[in-house]
Amino acid sequence: MSASTFVLVLDLLGTFVFALSGALVGVNKKLDLFGVLVLSFAAGNAGGITRDLLLGATPPPAISSWHYVVVSLGAGLLTFVWSPVVQRMQELISIIDAAGLALFAVSGATKAMDFHLNPLAAIMLGVLTGIGGGMLRDVLVSEVPTVLHADLYAVAALAGAAVVVGSYYLPLFTTTASLAGGVLCFAIRMIAIRRDWQLPKPHQPRDKNQPSPS
Amino acid sequence: MSASTFVLVLDLLGTFVFALSGALVGVNKKLDLFGVLVLSFAAGNAGGITRDLLLGATPPPAISSWHYVVVSLGAGLLTFVWSPVVQRMQELISIIDAAGLALFAVSGATKAMDFHLNPLAAIMLGVLTGIGGGMLRDVLVSEVPTVLHADLYAVAALAGAAVVVGSYYLPLFTTTASLAGGVLCFAIRMIAIRRDWQLPKPHQPRDKNQPSPS
Amino acid sequence: MSASTFVLVLDLLGTFVFALSGALVGVNKKLDLFGVLVLSFAAGNAGGITRDLLLGATPPPAISSWHYVVVSLGAGLLTFVWSPVVQRMQELISIIDAAGLALFAVSGATKAMDFHLNPLAAIMLGVLTGIGGGMLRDVLVSEVPTVLHADLYAVAALAGAAVVVGSYYLPLFTTTASLAGGVLCFAIRMIAIRRDWQLPKPHQPRDKNQPSPS
Repeated sequence: MSASTFVLVLDLLGTFVFALSGALVGVNKKLDLFGVLVLSFAAGNAGGITRDLLLGATPPPAISSWHYVVVSLGAGLLTFVWSPVVQRMQELISIIDAAGLALFAVSGATKAMDFHLNPLAAIMLGVLTGIGGGMLRDVLVSEVPTVLHADLYAVAALAGAAVVVGSYYLPLFTTTASLAGGVLCFAIRMIAIRRDWQLPKPHQPRDKNQPSPS
Repeated sequence: MSASTFVLVLDLLGTFVFALSGALVGVNKKLDLFGVLVLSFAAGNAGGITRDLLLGATPPPAISSWHYVVVSLGAGLLTFVWSPVVQRMQELISIIDAAGLALFAVSGATKAMDFHLNPLAAIMLGVLTGIGGGMLRDVLVSEVPTVLHADLYAVAALAGAAVVVGSYYLPLFTTTASLAGGVLCFAIRMIAIRRDWQLPKPHQPRDKNQPSPS
Repeated sequence: MSASTFVLVLDLLGTFVFALSGALVGVNKKLDLFGVLVLSFAAGNAGGITRDLLLGATPPPAISSWHYVVVSLGAGLLTFVWSPVVQRMQELISIIDAAGLALFAVSGATKAMDFHLNPLAAIMLGVLTGIGGGMLRDVLVSEVPTVLHADLYAVAALAGAAVVVGSYYLPLFTTTASLAGGVLCFAIRMIAIRRDWQLPKPHQPRDKNQPSPS
């Protein structure tokens, strides 16, 4: 298996897992079959598609290559038919989801650097590639995107993307940096899940008269 | 009237009816005049605009040609002023809406094939052209898009787009295929309305202890 | 300071204030730090980014130039840390917000005319540049965008953009027209705030049996 085939396989695995998460949300919201498939595709591909639109790289591979479509819809169909089974595999899914996040963050940042964006923008597009699918998934079912208020998720993607972008200014091999970035993102995400790490929330001084939560 | 004028007229008619549906939602949600016009434009044009962005066909005709803008805002103004009249014409509107869906599905798939997308992607973009406007309309008023959970709507668009895309691999005239695809989409949609056809919903095994609906 | 530096400074000031409004919404919705920063960036830049995508001007400056990113995230951080202070400055913010709206409407319409759009489309893109950020901000927290149902906001942007576009057909200097358009937009917006001007809402004849509000 060549290097580019290996990356494609990883990319499709990430798409597949993200699509599973979209389909599960669709099933839980009692959407019909078509709705579940739309959420699968959105969750699996919206991050990469938005990145590509911003870069002017049209049509995005998620549309123009049939691999992504088939993988996304396959995940959606699977979940539609066997949602209880998929739901019982939540722990496995959250591990593969962390791997998908790592991969999307790294590949998104790399693609942005290849398009000669500045490093800050490349990091942002790496994060967007990782979280965009989940955001659209939640907006479509009229929920505030999970990534905006719960869990240490985006920060893991940020760290992974930053390592990749930083490596362009250091005497490092791209492959080494991609691997390091991906592993860092995956590790942060997994530890965050295990220890329930959260980002700080803003002070709410107007709630002072409520009973203190501690 | 030449063939291309005929298509433009049909396309504008579809835009007009979709814009009516957007304006009605805006009126029912008690938006102000501007809000109603935004929903008209979004419902009438978001599907085609998203397709064009994904294809890299910028600026989209819905923006660069004044026809679409005038037709959409006209529908919005009409509904704003005479919403009771428009509301009483629901049945007529649902018929023209089915025609609009047929037309958008066929024209969207055709445009995608002209941009050399693969057949699967072309069918998806046909469906997106047909349903994208209604989806943005619903998201903007903070509702889960109707097309994701109720009614056989997207499947009609899918069938129409599939016929058009399939015809590229058969010794068929494009005009014949477009017509066949359009008629098929329209027919499925109308029958679905009459018989209240629905797509299957996922099993909800956790609701077992609730009284069975049958 | 050269003219283009002056415009950049104004543009960044507008972005900063819009980003403040996004961050405040995020704080009030109890998002975490990352969520607040996403809302800052979205509110400050989504209008301009959408305009640029529609024009095919990719990558949008809001992504490719680090100025906008830094200014948006700075506003978000500030608000996250000192949200009570920012909240007490609401009046000052609403004044700078009106200035930002004026600036975005004028610059958006100008950019659209430079891309040879028709006048109607250029006015629309001017308005979109002014209101798009606030709309995405509200959609992301699952609210109907404020601009669609409350306050005379979009009309101010419309007036400003229309003056700029109109000047292309008159023997006027662009600078004069930009200034006139900006001042008109700012003035309408400020008077609307002071006098609580609203756009008309649709008649709701079905509510007849409710007590009349007058």
